[in-house]
Amino acid sequence: MNPASEAMPVSIFETMSLAAAEHHAVNLGQGFPDFGWPEPLLAEAARLTREASNQYPPSRGLPALREAVCQFYNQRQGLTFNPSEIVVTSGATEAIAATLFACLDTGDEAVIVAPAYDAYAPLIRRAGGRVAEVALRPPDWRLAREALEAAVTARTRVLVLNNPHNPTGRVLGAEELAAVVAMARAHDLLILADEVWEEVLPPGARFTSLAALAPERVIKVGSAGKIFSLTGWKIGWLAAPQAIADVIARAHQYLTFATPPNLQAAVAVGLGHPEWLAPPREGFARARKRLAAGLEAAGYVLLPSEGTYFQCVDLGASGIALSDMAFAELAVREGGVAVIPLSPFYEGEAERGLVRLCFAKRDATIDAGVAAMARAR
Amino acid sequence: MNPASEAMPVSIFETMSLAAAEHHAVNLGQGFPDFGWPEPLLAEAARLTREASNQYPPSRGLPALREAVCQFYNQRQGLTFNPSEIVVTSGATEAIAATLFACLDTGDEAVIVAPAYDAYAPLIRRAGGRVAEVALRPPDWRLAREALEAAVTARTRVLVLNNPHNPTGRVLGAEELAAVVAMARAHDLLILADEVWEEVLPPGARFTSLAALAPERVIKVGSAGKIFSLTGWKIGWLAAPQAIADVIARAHQYLTFATPPNLQAAVAVGLGHPEWLAPPREGFARARKRLAAGLEAAGYVLLPSEGTYFQCVDLGASGIALSDMAFAELAVREGGVAVIPLSPFYEGEAERGLVRLCFAKRDATIDAGVAAMARAR
Ligand SMILES: CSCCC(=O)C(=O)O
Ligand SMILES: CSCCC(=O)C(=O)O
Repeated sequence: MNPASEAMPVSIFETMSLAAAEHHAVNLGQGFPDFGWPEPLLAEAARLTREASNQYPPSRGLPALREAVCQFYNQRQGLTFNPSEIVVTSGATEAIAATLFACLDTGDEAVIVAPAYDAYAPLIRRAGGRVAEVALRPPDWRLAREALEAAVTARTRVLVLNNPHNPTGRVLGAEELAAVVAMARAHDLLILADEVWEEVLPPGARFTSLAALAPERVIKVGSAGKIFSLTGWKIGWLAAPQAIADVIARAHQYLTFATPPNLQAAVAVGLGHPEWLAPPREGFARARKRLAAGLEAAGYVLLPSEGTYFQCVDLGASGIALSDMAFAELAVREGGVAVIPLSPFYEGEAERGLVRLCFAKRDATIDAGVAAMARAR
Repeated sequence: MNPASEAMPVSIFETMSLAAAEHHAVNLGQGFPDFGWPEPLLAEAARLTREASNQYPPSRGLPALREAVCQFYNQRQGLTFNPSEIVVTSGATEAIAATLFACLDTGDEAVIVAPAYDAYAPLIRRAGGRVAEVALRPPDWRLAREALEAAVTARTRVLVLNNPHNPTGRVLGAEELAAVVAMARAHDLLILADEVWEEVLPPGARFTSLAALAPERVIKVGSAGKIFSLTGWKIGWLAAPQAIADVIARAHQYLTFATPPNLQAAVAVGLGHPEWLAPPREGFARARKRLAAGLEAAGYVLLPSEGTYFQCVDLGASGIALSDMAFAELAVREGGVAVIPLSPFYEGEAERGLVRLCFAKRDATIDAGVAAMARAR
């Protein structure tokens, strides 16, 4: 077997969800909502499963979906994509995999920003690349241009940037985005902009895509699972200048080839109804308040959260001396709640004692999670 | 960009399907049926989309589907799998990708059997491996042990074997299978057994899985898309000894992480109804006869076809001097039918003048395809 594959851990999301099931714990770990999807979208998907094609769609995606993605972005984010710049993938993870396989050659380097989504580093290495890590520090998690500059070498090809940022909930400011773009231009880097959380923001928040700032070098990754609170559907996409999208599409064709056309067609319908997205945003904002109030009442100290449906807890500041891993283990086993420890998101030395909770949950789930967190300390 | 990715062609399946759409041609190219799926399965999928979870399932697949895959294989093929040996993937292509990424290290070699499915070689190379090709020759397409032996070196790790074989329609005999197993044991090779066509066989035919003959070293790949004539669903899986499956599951978690749970749950139901598979088998056998009779009446000489829903035509023997690529181009543009040329399935020198037609089609589609083939010569 490949030694790197053999040495890989099971994803922390899978590990904690399996532990939640084993211990009958409330699952505030892996990021998925238990409300918030548009019911008409499920009805549409059911109808299309019976009435539309269930055979291979084009490898790059249904024309209707590629068109809908463009319209959605162009209207909502002031972008100027056309369908030849879109490649539909089997979830955003596959879009990231295809992009890294298409862009990196042996010995190339990619910069990631830690705490970083756990797929980036193993994929960069599997593509033959080397990982350079820029670590953000709490509580502000600011991305400093100097830190980025220090990570770039003559072999750097790609900068992987997740914004809004998971697991911290940070949304980058205009100045940080401008610094990223300036640096990418100075060193002629591609930017893999993992913007899957673009619609998981407080009501009224406006989002700036890196694709608006550096359209010539940004590969923008999006996710219907995040936009419509249907994480299981695994419909993702990337949007990039056509010459780049063409090469990524060739990596994609040998990873999954295509993505279920019934679900693609439903997502195309959904993207034409942006009004479906406001109610869940309001619901998630209320849920965030409810979780925060409950955790604070139980003596937990929280870090700021501006976007995503995640809230981080500072265990040390909360008077808990355990490591994040030890606390997560205890919380799921003794307290009855699954959370996500942050140390698996660092290649180098991790911040100590931070855990992440998902608040995209109904009141009853939040309340059960808070009660379990109170028991866990 | 990665030079190998940049140099990759667009898959011949995608190329021909796009050409079929552009020229309003009958599509007998890419392998997908236009009848033969169980209607109750669509109803079940529609119901589950509305009523079951649409959130992340476990990365290795829904327990119900992993259990159903075991029961299906254990009852139908005399295998002895248990659910911990199954990993559900986003189509068989992803199962093949995850397996090659998990098993190959830089400089390792993998043997493929040409004409070979077009994903194998690029994936082996992207995993850092080298491709050794064993070419079969028409009309019998026999796999000789000596040819396999000649391709194996000290660096060979994996033998990739597709049986029933696409694009030839060949089903390997007991003697050939025994030779494959003996050779794999002698050189301690893994066997990636791409058996996605295991249920696309003439009525009454029995299938022997390599997993029955060498369970300790076979990674068996299957596909709900092929079994249920629903190629768009992109639900695949692999079955392998648990220690091997565990490593492949870690490659899988960073390729797509998971596969739509509504469709997984429907496939689990479908696998419990093997009686649903007999009528399409009979329909495909009738369609094969209809296509063969029509092509022969139009002066085409056919190669034998024992399995899959593909029929190969020998252009040279049919008195057509064009290359397979030139004929395919002409047939879609002038005749109005898309076919698949075989030369893209060879790394080395290709057999000349062979094209493949898909016969999993309704009478009207077959008849239109035959008329177009008659025009194309
Ligand atoms: C693919 S499982 C991880 C889901 C997610 O985005 C998260 O929990 O951060
Ligand atoms: C993934 S498209 C190819 C479908 C197929 O198996 C074939 O046509 O051979």
